[in-house]
Amino acid sequence: MTSEETTATVLTAETQAALDRAVSSTHRHEALFSDRAFHIKQSAVRDVFDISIRPGLISLAGGSPYLRSLPLAELGLSAQRIIAEHGLEALQYGAGQGMEELRIQACEVMAAEGITDADPADIVITTGSQSAQDVAAKVFCNPGDVVLCEDPTYVGALNAFEAYEVQMHALPVDSEGLVPEALEEAIASLRKQGKTIKMLYIIPSFNNPSGVTLAARRRPRIVEICARANILILEDNPYGMLRFDGNPLVPLRAGNPDDVLYLGSFSKIFAPGVRVGWALVPRHLHRRFYLACEAVVLCPSPLTQMLVSAYLRDYDWMQNIRDSRMLYASRCAAMLAALTEELPDGVSWTVPDGGFFVWLSLPEGVDTYPLLYEAIDAGVVFIPGAAFSPSDEPSNKLRLAFSAVSEEDIAEGVRRLAPVLRRAMDHAAG
Amino acid sequence: MTSEETTATVLTAETQAALDRAVSSTHRHEALFSDRAFHIKQSAVRDVFDISIRPGLISLAGGSPYLRSLPLAELGLSAQRIIAEHGLEALQYGAGQGMEELRIQACEVMAAEGITDADPADIVITTGSQSAQDVAAKVFCNPGDVVLCEDPTYVGALNAFEAYEVQMHALPVDSEGLVPEALEEAIASLRKQGKTIKMLYIIPSFNNPSGVTLAARRRPRIVEICARANILILEDNPYGMLRFDGNPLVPLRAGNPDDVLYLGSFSKIFAPGVRVGWALVPRHLHRRFYLACEAVVLCPSPLTQMLVSAYLRDYDWMQNIRDSRMLYASRCAAMLAALTEELPDGVSWTVPDGGFFVWLSLPEGVDTYPLLYEAIDAGVVFIPGAAFSPSDEPSNKLRLAFSAVSEEDIAEGVRRLAPVLRRAMDHAAG
Repeated sequence: MTSEETTATVLTAETQAALDRAVSSTHRHEALFSDRAFHIKQSAVRDVFDISIRPGLISLAGGSPYLRSLPLAELGLSAQRIIAEHGLEALQYGAGQGMEELRIQACEVMAAEGITDADPADIVITTGSQSAQDVAAKVFCNPGDVVLCEDPTYVGALNAFEAYEVQMHALPVDSEGLVPEALEEAIASLRKQGKTIKMLYIIPSFNNPSGVTLAARRRPRIVEICARANILILEDNPYGMLRFDGNPLVPLRAGNPDDVLYLGSFSKIFAPGVRVGWALVPRHLHRRFYLACEAVVLCPSPLTQMLVSAYLRDYDWMQNIRDSRMLYASRCAAMLAALTEELPDGVSWTVPDGGFFVWLSLPEGVDTYPLLYEAIDAGVVFIPGAAFSPSDEPSNKLRLAFSAVSEEDIAEGVRRLAPVLRRAMDHAAG
Repeated sequence: MTSEETTATVLTAETQAALDRAVSSTHRHEALFSDRAFHIKQSAVRDVFDISIRPGLISLAGGSPYLRSLPLAELGLSAQRIIAEHGLEALQYGAGQGMEELRIQACEVMAAEGITDADPADIVITTGSQSAQDVAAKVFCNPGDVVLCEDPTYVGALNAFEAYEVQMHALPVDSEGLVPEALEEAIASLRKQGKTIKMLYIIPSFNNPSGVTLAARRRPRIVEICARANILILEDNPYGMLRFDGNPLVPLRAGNPDDVLYLGSFSKIFAPGVRVGWALVPRHLHRRFYLACEAVVLCPSPLTQMLVSAYLRDYDWMQNIRDSRMLYASRCAAMLAALTEELPDGVSWTVPDGGFFVWLSLPEGVDTYPLLYEAIDAGVVFIPGAAFSPSDEPSNKLRLAFSAVSEEDIAEGVRRLAPVLRRAMDHAAG
């Protein structure tokens, strides 16, 4: 069970509210909660996952990276040296902005993706990318402000923004990613309604959960639309380096230092357990962003920053990424083959060029949430689509992750899932 | 330079606002900031500290713990084993609530302080205590809500709460800590003004910055007043174990599981660089608090949690605390002796029973902020008192930290400080 999994939200707002009232309405402290507290969603899937840890279950739910290829013995020695030789720095408070060496290395990582002009001074190291999303919501969004996002989008971002009473507005996506015309129309329509739009939150490469990538030719267009409308782009790019074939697509940030706040993460190209990410912040926004980061954690952990630094300095991290890409590509292929082999007509899915996820669409009218329990009974876990949408409508989609599961288990997991979906479709059709 | 230092805030609100306008008003993105962004204070002391790193300077500013007594070589080996043998867990995503082993150990730490009924299920491991303060503000406070605190209080808490547009209301403290009658009066008066009071934020043992401790006999009274007024107590107790003599004072939380949200930290009894603290949350508030924690960081770092766990499991941490207490006691004595020896009549200071800090009061009319620059010229650094107060009034107080400086340097630092204070007092008197 990973946190990424457990933040998935599947209860409807009504059910949540009822639960909340039942739990705490008897206590006089109920009156002490902030308004925003009621917008912080219940991670209902967590309970499911407590069940789902049982032996023999195959989890296609969690977006965990594959870590077995990391040189753990050597990394252990790196950590040992960091503490034995630099313990007074590693174990002490550090700078709020993060360590300079790591900020310089983050620039090197970004350069490998096509952002060649990043200045380490414009970077803030964050406690994972999640913390950067939380801070972005905090610094930019008043209650009721609108943040545009893709439909579907990352559940952790929904949770982070909705905790600040932000209205997440999901935009249609096709096989080439966010549709520019839909973006323009939504901006015009929301403004006509008097809404204040602050940001576009976007995962342009291998979206979580959909696996869809924003086509290269659409990228400048999206940036231009947002710049013209004075909407900041929050580009979340944890998977960008994990393109199966060819070079990474150039991020939106690349030629647009003023219009894009870029979020990077070491969770998928190194290890999530260090909780280290970074934000490359437009210079005119940097100070407030940085101060807000300091107010939430004082400083990121020097110890884990130094371990990431050592990994980037002393290991062939690019080769490890190349190996990871091949591994994930094989697993993705195994999943696509199993889906083709096993799933009934009427189910469709995305074909990702990278990342961790495939997104399934069932026929209209099938709600994937109740299927989760049936799937667990059948020995497989997925994440229902409703978790990835700001609306609390039932969803006929679901997310499968291939990142952390062997090809054999992927095939077996899909084999177990197939009859569950078939029954639900038969039932809906009947 | 530590983050704890750099969050100190000394610019007045007016100066900050002017600076902010100058920096960003030329950019169209200025309109994108949230209202709360303008309440996130500039860490002006940071600039001072960039100057202050110069060799030969003695810093009595930073509240850094002394780490040289930690068994760094052995801890390095512990980290090595954690990664080599349990790397797939340590480097992966973990549970949002934190690891069970560490939550159990946190209960053992609290038991040593007098909280004997804590249940690991009621704990959330946080990314340092700062993150718990941020989450508490988020979950409980609407803009304009009042949080009561001691005068003076921890600058990081002020920053965390004010970032949510909370009105921090500082209450008078005498040599026995927060004055119960003043608390009652403030509650009545603020309510008469129509204010909503949500919490009392309090550091009852060895307050940062004042070093003052809330007397044992006042503790039940404070809890009772708050309970009757339906005000939650947020008890911040990072220094509780670091009482120079005798047993730790029993925390407010001890007999009051429903009325106190207790914050613990491994920063002062182990190491701040791991960024691991914990919140013991009243059961009826736990779920919302925990969900908010997940929304800000997904999960605390399993790697650093496991290192803290190993430290508590495999080392004689209680002996290390006993050693630390003796060390801090000696340093505190050295500072008090130097103050007595060097400082002019008219300066008074607190005499702490534990913790890291001594709080100096200069005569009325002396503003300690401009003295900081003179002190740096004289080769010593302190934190001006204004940083520790929600008001932006000039302050005649200042904080000296003895925790991370040798007795020799403490004496020399005070020697350098004395003429700066004397000149300022002469000037004010003349």
